[in-house]
Amino acid sequence: MTATYPSEAQPQSRAHGWPGLIEAYRDYLPVTDTTPIVTLHEGNTPLIPVPTIAREIGRGVEVFVKYDGLNPTGSFKDRGMTMAITKAKEAGAKAVICASTGNTSAAAAAYARRGGLRAFVLIPDGFVAQGKLAQALLYGAEVLAIKGNFDRALEIVREVANQYPVTLVNSLNPYRLEGQKTAAFELIDVLGEAPDWLCIPMGNAGNISAYWMGFQEYHAKGLSQKLPRMMGFQAAGSAPLVTGEIVQSPDTIATAIRIGNPANWQRALRVHEESNGAFNAVTDAEILDAYRMLAGQEGIFCEPASAASVAGMLKCKDEIPDGATIVCVLTGNGLKDPSSAIEFSHTGFKAGIEPDLDIVAHTMGF
Amino acid sequence: MTATYPSEAQPQSRAHGWPGLIEAYRDYLPVTDTTPIVTLHEGNTPLIPVPTIAREIGRGVEVFVKYDGLNPTGSFKDRGMTMAITKAKEAGAKAVICASTGNTSAAAAAYARRGGLRAFVLIPDGFVAQGKLAQALLYGAEVLAIKGNFDRALEIVREVANQYPVTLVNSLNPYRLEGQKTAAFELIDVLGEAPDWLCIPMGNAGNISAYWMGFQEYHAKGLSQKLPRMMGFQAAGSAPLVTGEIVQSPDTIATAIRIGNPANWQRALRVHEESNGAFNAVTDAEILDAYRMLAGQEGIFCEPASAASVAGMLKCKDEIPDGATIVCVLTGNGLKDPSSAIEFSHTGFKAGIEPDLDIVAHTMGF
Repeated sequence: MTATYPSEAQPQSRAHGWPGLIEAYRDYLPVTDTTPIVTLHEGNTPLIPVPTIAREIGRGVEVFVKYDGLNPTGSFKDRGMTMAITKAKEAGAKAVICASTGNTSAAAAAYARRGGLRAFVLIPDGFVAQGKLAQALLYGAEVLAIKGNFDRALEIVREVANQYPVTLVNSLNPYRLEGQKTAAFELIDVLGEAPDWLCIPMGNAGNISAYWMGFQEYHAKGLSQKLPRMMGFQAAGSAPLVTGEIVQSPDTIATAIRIGNPANWQRALRVHEESNGAFNAVTDAEILDAYRMLAGQEGIFCEPASAASVAGMLKCKDEIPDGATIVCVLTGNGLKDPSSAIEFSHTGFKAGIEPDLDIVAHTMGF
Repeated sequence: MTATYPSEAQPQSRAHGWPGLIEAYRDYLPVTDTTPIVTLHEGNTPLIPVPTIAREIGRGVEVFVKYDGLNPTGSFKDRGMTMAITKAKEAGAKAVICASTGNTSAAAAAYARRGGLRAFVLIPDGFVAQGKLAQALLYGAEVLAIKGNFDRALEIVREVANQYPVTLVNSLNPYRLEGQKTAAFELIDVLGEAPDWLCIPMGNAGNISAYWMGFQEYHAKGLSQKLPRMMGFQAAGSAPLVTGEIVQSPDTIATAIRIGNPANWQRALRVHEESNGAFNAVTDAEILDAYRMLAGQEGIFCEPASAASVAGMLKCKDEIPDGATIVCVLTGNGLKDPSSAIEFSHTGFKAGIEPDLDIVAHTMGF
């Protein structure tokens, strides 16, 4: 199966004004004509073939990456946040709150401010470098660092949302998965069918649950003939869904999936069973190999956590059916984590070269 | 005039597989059926209304930003680089070279590696922090730091390209503007007409020249009825096109447009004249105000240099005709420059808060 791009089917040489995922998929989402939609035109991210990686598998297998790092704030969290903030605004909230140090806080702040709401972010004091929050702060987040650990921050966030007119936009917010499921719609709309495998990193396991919702909804409407096997991958040092046990001190360079007790544990198990899927762990070394391969061979720069999907697929490559179509989800933009790029690139940096044509040419290999 | 999104015109609720700008606009670009297209599905970036900023102007003026920071490597340079690398590959090149420390080197490396070519980047020794090159290095660029200044690096790059089978992909490469002009096509395809004003940051003035090419080509084919006024903005400390004099030591926080002697000086003057445009300077303070306003009011995070387009528009707001449609070009993703986000955000960071519901709520203003 080949992605049916406009140029191959019907010449359609024009850009379109993608209106954001709520407008695009409003029939599948809990909105009405009067819902005040808060959008940054998220979604419709590129589905990019990765032929060099596919050649590692061979046997006519086609591999694509869903590059969700090209959402407006740089991660797939925008899909859920456009819904969560839209519904918060519809309900009359004046503020939202979350406990997060990463992609969630950035997305929450951007959408809240766009919708004219205040955005509060709670974090444990002394735990988080301010640089990690730079994006959220520039978006106008009000960050409160509390004495206590992350679990305490989470508790307080829930208490605040219970007792004050502030909407919780943590992963407990039910609208986030509704927005995130649209990524599955997009895959089917572009490929013309569901892929055979969907490979995806798992932290809280919200995204794999949302994709499965989306695949099931389209399938139920007859918009796809098959359902994919859901292949979830965790980092070896943070793999509760693989081992079946809570990890007290999760440890991995893939910070976006460094979660020892996933919020969507039971949902994830249902996805595993219903889709005849499989959950596996990949080591940090395997994640970094995939991270470098995606950038250096395919020109695609993702967060280390995102590369777990590709690392996992390659680890399971002998199980891939001949001629299968596989989509690996890249959840975040590599620019989110420049320090990993510096630390883990196999550097091709040579300094102190004489400014002379012959010497430079020789250094280049001529 | 309102952007005609699919949802307003004809319900079209599905994602499409945007094939990249060369496939989308191949009739307007120097490619044939056998050209080996190197693409990361760049282009088709969101055109986002910025109603809060438009209210600063009032009088029925509509303002959109063209968020080209959502291209695959995070800047508009991808538009030109898909063309430049495609043509280099078609010509049989095995390597490309440029002198750049920023967005150009990242785009060159990503597309070269995707096309299976080597990517060389020359920089002045000791001048550039390796962090600035992290992205290019992860993409697999081979970076050579030569003893000498940036001008010497540029000279050597040209000499290498003249004498060895290495294609120059600096701004002198003629195919880059061809790719970049597609951004103008996209504006017209989405808006249904050219905007009244196109506000754009100017460094080397390649992008304003490319946009103008695009507007003229669509106009000549009858795909738009009007041509925009081209409003170019430079940083006050680096404004040769405004003052008419080369700036020996350009100085601005907007590093992406810190260029004292623009490569496309003569082209830019023609654009100014032909479009009845205007070139103006904006101070760093004005740029930073626009940078913070875009993030904190509209939820859009760009490079400081990108915000020069919005800062400039606001500076000239009294000249804007009633009811005009204006597009401001945001050339790069804010994630490219996290240190500016840290340094220039009006921080809402409060530390050391007791982990108590009432205290937290009180701190939030309840």
